[in-house]
Amino acid sequence: MVEGPASLKGKKYPAKQHARNVYAHLKEKNLQKAESSVFFISGEDNELIQYSDQNKPFRQNRYFFYLSGCPIPGAHVVYQPQRDHLTLYLPNIDWDDVMWSGLPLSLEQAKEKFDVDEVKYAETLEADLAIINFNLLTTDINKSNIKFASILKEGDKDLFYAMDEARLIKDDYEIELMRHAAKISDNCHLAVMSAVPIETNETHIHAEFMYHAIRQGSKYQSYDPICCSGPSCSTLHYIKNDDEITPDKRSILIDAGAEWDCYASDVTRCFPINGDWTKEHLEIYNIVLKMQKTALGLIKPGALWDDIHLTTHKVLIEEFQKLGIFKSEFSVEELFESKVSARFFPHGLGHLLGMDTHDVGGYPNYSDPDPLLVYLRIRRPLKAGMVVTDEPGVYFNPFLLEDTLKDPSKLKYINKEILDKYWYIGGVRIEDDILITETGYENLTGITSDPEEISKIVKAGFQKKFHNIV
Amino acid sequence: MVEGPASLKGKKYPAKQHARNVYAHLKEKNLQKAESSVFFISGEDNELIQYSDQNKPFRQNRYFFYLSGCPIPGAHVVYQPQRDHLTLYLPNIDWDDVMWSGLPLSLEQAKEKFDVDEVKYAETLEADLAIINFNLLTTDINKSNIKFASILKEGDKDLFYAMDEARLIKDDYEIELMRHAAKISDNCHLAVMSAVPIETNETHIHAEFMYHAIRQGSKYQSYDPICCSGPSCSTLHYIKNDDEITPDKRSILIDAGAEWDCYASDVTRCFPINGDWTKEHLEIYNIVLKMQKTALGLIKPGALWDDIHLTTHKVLIEEFQKLGIFKSEFSVEELFESKVSARFFPHGLGHLLGMDTHDVGGYPNYSDPDPLLVYLRIRRPLKAGMVVTDEPGVYFNPFLLEDTLKDPSKLKYINKEILDKYWYIGGVRIEDDILITETGYENLTGITSDPEEISKIVKAGFQKKFHNIV
Repeated sequence: MVEGPASLKGKKYPAKQHARNVYAHLKEKNLQKAESSVFFISGEDNELIQYSDQNKPFRQNRYFFYLSGCPIPGAHVVYQPQRDHLTLYLPNIDWDDVMWSGLPLSLEQAKEKFDVDEVKYAETLEADLAIINFNLLTTDINKSNIKFASILKEGDKDLFYAMDEARLIKDDYEIELMRHAAKISDNCHLAVMSAVPIETNETHIHAEFMYHAIRQGSKYQSYDPICCSGPSCSTLHYIKNDDEITPDKRSILIDAGAEWDCYASDVTRCFPINGDWTKEHLEIYNIVLKMQKTALGLIKPGALWDDIHLTTHKVLIEEFQKLGIFKSEFSVEELFESKVSARFFPHGLGHLLGMDTHDVGGYPNYSDPDPLLVYLRIRRPLKAGMVVTDEPGVYFNPFLLEDTLKDPSKLKYINKEILDKYWYIGGVRIEDDILITETGYENLTGITSDPEEISKIVKAGFQKKFHNIV
Repeated sequence: MVEGPASLKGKKYPAKQHARNVYAHLKEKNLQKAESSVFFISGEDNELIQYSDQNKPFRQNRYFFYLSGCPIPGAHVVYQPQRDHLTLYLPNIDWDDVMWSGLPLSLEQAKEKFDVDEVKYAETLEADLAIINFNLLTTDINKSNIKFASILKEGDKDLFYAMDEARLIKDDYEIELMRHAAKISDNCHLAVMSAVPIETNETHIHAEFMYHAIRQGSKYQSYDPICCSGPSCSTLHYIKNDDEITPDKRSILIDAGAEWDCYASDVTRCFPINGDWTKEHLEIYNIVLKMQKTALGLIKPGALWDDIHLTTHKVLIEEFQKLGIFKSEFSVEELFESKVSARFFPHGLGHLLGMDTHDVGGYPNYSDPDPLLVYLRIRRPLKAGMVVTDEPGVYFNPFLLEDTLKDPSKLKYINKEILDKYWYIGGVRIEDDILITETGYENLTGITSDPEEISKIVKAGFQKKFHNIV
């Protein structure tokens, strides 16, 4: 096994406490239902690719993992709050499978490993469920639990609410997992910056990140790495990752995060290809960095994410006025009200982070009529124990700006000839993972975002190339 | 874009010819049905992870790709043999998606890129299908085509037969794709062998392979790499890939293959950790190499795969007698008839290779009562244009051999004290990708399997470490 965080050695993932937390939130919502409820959650099972004997990539069901800490496919968990009793059901042993894949974890080993009161094989599940004289709440009826469908209550909204509210606040164990994932990502991003001399295609950046992540034991990433260069840095969900990095493209953007034990990290860094920032690239970089730092200064329990997000739009507007992209004759307030900044910074300032990259409990409103807020993924006050991303961005995307530049009521705010100097950059985003603490925040992301430091790291890579190897 | 094979520059994936081939096979089977049939195949579509806004990893439907060459999610293809007319339907443009992901391929670009007569958007599909006055054969009703369910004929056995027989014989274009995938795998395996000095955990081997594959443009692998060390080399479908490579483990086995444009490679190499083969490891390696070469010598059109497979079992038996693992007092024929070799070489000699790692058209018989044949994935004579793997293996797996060692009627053939010297190796498998040609075969796999060469490559990596760096 690749070693995880030293601080967690000998400790178990706190599944039992998680089950209790979910129950507490359910009680908060509806005392009567809570008292008569038992939670039954099935994990994901292996699934074949259609017309093939090969399995699809496996990803554990996050709700199941939260209540079990168990990464094994085809398992189930039952929590009886009345007895404060947590039972993990492992899949029955398939002897054909053992022949090809080796012996699975035994019941005793599983009991040792997971924070549950009891471990049994799934073959006993039917009989066990039949004698539980309570409301059996489950997430959804699926292949794994269809044979119990008649006794399960599916998709209970209060159960989802309780699980999401519990998952929202990370405990010390979860935070250690996230710190570890973040540390792996730090190393990967540093490696990518240092390796630019051997990178002549976006896919090399992708390879570099994956190499260092897998070496450190992060076999799967939180999400598909976004690796872009030049104008492509303006495509928010760029996944091609296969364009040549030609010298005329000055900018690189990499958005990639390692995963550790089902917990995500999510980090974006931008840097100049040869280590030298162009005037325009550095100008935009510094604006985004100021937006990010402004947000950080406001992050603390009780702060409203809407407000912080909107404040960063005002920073963008002020700085765009200094550069002349937005005309100075208009007040910041008028520009803000015009919503013209929405197409330069179209996404939200950040999202909750946890087992999912876009974690549960943010309650976004994708039908919000305000273009500044429609894609904001957190619409609630911050609380200690949440982890959020702080990831402002500024983009010059011809497609995104097409309407704005055709609309005289928007175009009047913009100096088109100044704007035209910036297209080649594509865009800049800086993204860190931020834990909300009682007194403010802790930045889980350690890789530098200082533009001078970044320049030094990229250049050191080049020096290595020219002095030691060529 | 990362460059593909130079030989294919300016050429298109021969989708139209593939459609004609499928039709020819259908005619072969049933003239009347063929003449009244139109093929309608939907590609895979993007699918969200449950409870998440993130897509599952995308893998194109192979039947769809065969008839279109199109990697785009959510597309469809219709072939009308009566008009010899192939139409590709691209998904309708989703403007929300364009905002985040950029503009998709236009109809004109798609027409330029794919070997089809016509490209349209899916919005016209319903009307188009309604006026096609023929039997609409499809693979399966699924999310992508459910709205046409009433006019589709699902899961037609003759259609599957015709597609599988067509896919069985690879044309020049497909062979070039497979050569390219094989070449990428060669480079990756060479890199893994050379990098042993920096590898102290199986996951490092995994990382090394992935790094070199992605750098060369193979973003997804044909299958999850199997990277094992020491006794774990006996687990056929080992996927943990995270054990430490301690000096007492002398053997490494890596089974990994790059994919190129949906076409697979599938390669296994074994090597000693520090470059020096132990006596027992080399003995077993040489047996497997002899089995592999014996098979190669028999591969040609018309040869029966059963026979070749069984011949390699006889090689194993003879060589085990030389080592003393099998007792010499029994004849090869008696040992062969006893099936005792099945638990040392439990899998088949090889499988068809193409778009799927275990490609279509092999017609295995998993209920064959003969333990030597039950897992054999090709049960038909070889034909020119097939690509197969040649991958014998010898394993010392305590679980697999448990029954054999307890059964006096089997144990009598075995010198237990000699067998006991071999457990630490785990196992050896050597796997190359073999194209059947008119006159014999071509080995698509170029990475050496010569034990002396391998020893040199591993040792050169160590010299690099000790001379240049440390």
